[in-house]
Amino acid sequence: MMISRTLLAYACLLSWTNFAVAEQYVRYSKDGKISYGLVEGTRVRELSGDLFNSPKKTDTTHAMADVKILIPAVPTQVLALAGNYRSHLKNDVVPPKFQIVQPFYKSPSCLVAQGESIVLPKDAKTVHYEAELVIIIGKKCSKVSKASAMEYVFGVSAGNDVSERIWQNDENVKDVQWWRAKGADTFGPVGPVIATGLDYGNLMLRLKLNGEVKQEERTDHLIHDIPSTVSFISRYVTLHPGDMIFTGTPGTTSTIKPGDIVEVELEGVGTLRNPVVAEK
Amino acid sequence: MMISRTLLAYACLLSWTNFAVAEQYVRYSKDGKISYGLVEGTRVRELSGDLFNSPKKTDTTHAMADVKILIPAVPTQVLALAGNYRSHLKNDVVPPKFQIVQPFYKSPSCLVAQGESIVLPKDAKTVHYEAELVIIIGKKCSKVSKASAMEYVFGVSAGNDVSERIWQNDENVKDVQWWRAKGADTFGPVGPVIATGLDYGNLMLRLKLNGEVKQEERTDHLIHDIPSTVSFISRYVTLHPGDMIFTGTPGTTSTIKPGDIVEVELEGVGTLRNPVVAEK
Repeated sequence: MMISRTLLAYACLLSWTNFAVAEQYVRYSKDGKISYGLVEGTRVRELSGDLFNSPKKTDTTHAMADVKILIPAVPTQVLALAGNYRSHLKNDVVPPKFQIVQPFYKSPSCLVAQGESIVLPKDAKTVHYEAELVIIIGKKCSKVSKASAMEYVFGVSAGNDVSERIWQNDENVKDVQWWRAKGADTFGPVGPVIATGLDYGNLMLRLKLNGEVKQEERTDHLIHDIPSTVSFISRYVTLHPGDMIFTGTPGTTSTIKPGDIVEVELEGVGTLRNPVVAEK
Repeated sequence: MMISRTLLAYACLLSWTNFAVAEQYVRYSKDGKISYGLVEGTRVRELSGDLFNSPKKTDTTHAMADVKILIPAVPTQVLALAGNYRSHLKNDVVPPKFQIVQPFYKSPSCLVAQGESIVLPKDAKTVHYEAELVIIIGKKCSKVSKASAMEYVFGVSAGNDVSERIWQNDENVKDVQWWRAKGADTFGPVGPVIATGLDYGNLMLRLKLNGEVKQEERTDHLIHDIPSTVSFISRYVTLHPGDMIFTGTPGTTSTIKPGDIVEVELEGVGTLRNPVVAEK
């Protein structure tokens, strides 16, 4: 009787939360071979097949410390959102422009993995960090409703939408579009893992610069939540497995300089850590 | 004596022009198999291996009429230029903003091939054509000089940078960035072939709407030529084999509507033809 009640309660909980099992996936290289893996404590279990299409567990495991962590997926496109936290817009009322989802493209070329350097271009003067939750798409997705959008989301990762503010905003010199302001090489740290089965809409997101907390806000403060974002983008742009959507940054950002260590912490994902260096 | 003079003249010409052999390459599917091919008159010869890494000719050929032409490469990213012809800027003097190369990203998701439809989204009101020469990158390319940039260019194709002008420009409703204005599904017709070995900087580019010439200008009118464009972009964003750069449109553009046929003609490449339909 006790057992059946426990089972019933567990079944109800699963039904109510409607989440996939909480797991962490990592993409890594080991002895020249690139694989996806399932994180098991301090080890990673190699998966065979496509992460986004019923991967199979293998008998091979490695210590996490012995593999090189890569960007967590290989996207066909990387989108990001502008103005998706009131604290970043510095306005309790959402301005009309941001009452709809406002995406832009980052370049897949700009992605870097856990531990890799953010390289400040020689002529970049004001480069800022931006801690963000990153949506990882799991299934091809076109014109999906808000109600069904989560079926197309594989999980989330942590990201840093590194931004050169002069190229982005300066009235005298600003570029027509944000191609290099947001898409220059190394301006897209992402990782270290993809986490599944969490309440993505209520995770603590934090950024530390050289150990000092600079951004700290929960993802329930997103103006446009994950289902709204995926549904809106998919009305116009077909999304593919592995595609990434950076969901915007909270609060205030500031400049980074060579020698800095930037850490994005996302609850359930862990810490994405990247050093900052100058272009040689 | 005559022969050696002819050979010498030919050698000098090759040296002077410094062009690869003029060829046309096509990507196609036949009986469910996707291949790259070399165009030989009305037939296509299948290539094995990677188009961008010493492909080999096979003994298999097909009539061009019997294959389905696909987009001519699979890019990791698609860039395009804003304001790269004086005739489009409607200004004999290049405004300060356009004295540097002004790229933006289109989505790889938006690319469609020869014959495929341009689909007008339900809520798109003012969709324009834009005939363009498209650079196809052949080798990984980072921080290359203008002098060496052409070593990284595989060839050129024809493209249509389809653009929704309200999402792009309308002061009241315009988007923060051009993600859907320039990147909505089907907004990137490209093809039908990649042409090599031409004087890319002096080709006739023409657009016909339902058979009527609407744009007509030679590519020697590009404000930023191909070497300048590739060199500038590569200072910030690493380019990869197959990556595409739409180089901007000349003259004046106008709206397209369901039932229209849009043709982009690029000398040496041929005619990229796409019908226009409404989203269902």
